Amino acid sequence: MEKDLYTLAKDKALEYFEKAHIVLTEKEKNEVEVADFGLGDLYQTGLESVVYINTDNCCAKEMVLFPYQTCPEHIHPPIGDHYPGKEETFRVRMGTVYLYVEGDPVSNPKAIIPKNSEKFYTVFHEITLQAGEQYTLYPGTKHWFQAGSEGAVVSEFSTHCYDEYDIFTNPAIKRIPDIIN
Amino acid sequence: MEKDLYTLAKDKALEYFEKAHIVLTEKEKNEVEVADFGLGDLYQTGLESVVYINTDNCCAKEMVLFPYQTCPEHIHPPIGDHYPGKEETFRVRMGTVYLYVEGDPVSNPKAIIPKNSEKFYTVFHEITLQAGEQYTLYPGTKHWFQAGSEGAVVSEFSTHCYDEYDIFTNPAIKRIPDIIN
Repeated sequence: MEKDLYTLAKDKALEYFEKAHIVLTEKEKNEVEVADFGLGDLYQTGLESVVYINTDNCCAKEMVLFPYQTCPEHIHPPIGDHYPGKEETFRVRMGTVYLYVEGDPVSNPKAIIPKNSEKFYTVFHEITLQAGEQYTLYPGTKHWFQAGSEGAVVSEFSTHCYDEYDIFTNPAIKRIPDIIN
Repeated sequence: MEKDLYTLAKDKALEYFEKAHIVLTEKEKNEVEVADFGLGDLYQTGLESVVYINTDNCCAKEMVLFPYQTCPEHIHPPIGDHYPGKEETFRVRMGTVYLYVEGDPVSNPKAIIPKNSEKFYTVFHEITLQAGEQYTLYPGTKHWFQAGSEGAVVSEFSTHCYDEYDIFTNPAIKRIPDIIN
């Protein structure tokens, strides 16, 4: 991702945090992560986040999704003998999020499936989360999510976060962002 | 605690959540916990909270402290062979919190030690947290905390929360509130 796009998206994410009255330190503001998942189409497939804490046991972060921006389908696999995979709770603070997990599929998903990536979206059990609502994903649950028309701010409470081990349905995805200066 | 006091404190806590722009469901609003720790002096020693999630692995809650209200000194002990005790991160969302842990004591604590309970406060290493600031307590750290003059709203991200096992320095304390109808 080009540095200019990173800066633009970071500043836009900070506007969302401000609108949701999420107070960040200057250090956190400077360290907002902008992930385009290596697909080069950030506003369609991407995620902005600030990690508050990520110890061996606990992780908490704050995420921004721009309008209709999608965090693509993935799973948090077990790691080693003792980590069954990440357990995570999404709590929406502002806006609407459409979350999709394994289970009875809906026939007309409210989310817009990212163009040219349709085959990498395979689970369609739909959970709609408004501000103040939350959903817990236990290890091994395939999922993806998208913000509604106003974008969204979402808190995540979880076990340790090993982003680099996430398995995406789209094999072209690269989770850890590369910023080109 | 009398039901009338519970209702009053619950409504007051909801005002703080609203001021901090924390969105709660109606169910959560109805289930705000008001704890006076059995000391019958809620505005001096007490805590208001909403638990978002408390699975075997993760807990997240939102807390309110009224002006100068104190969560009294305690420790989260190990439980059984596999739980080393609760690890918790406090993140202040609104107001100021004075947190005290073991370590070099300050000579003039900014918090006002609850009257008639002075002997139950023994750790005085002071950490001042403003909105957007946080601190992580690892298992076995004795601690207590108090809000400044404007009260505070604090998020807590932690491992599983077994409130009933907390060990308070004041042996008269009863952690789980009794509401008298």
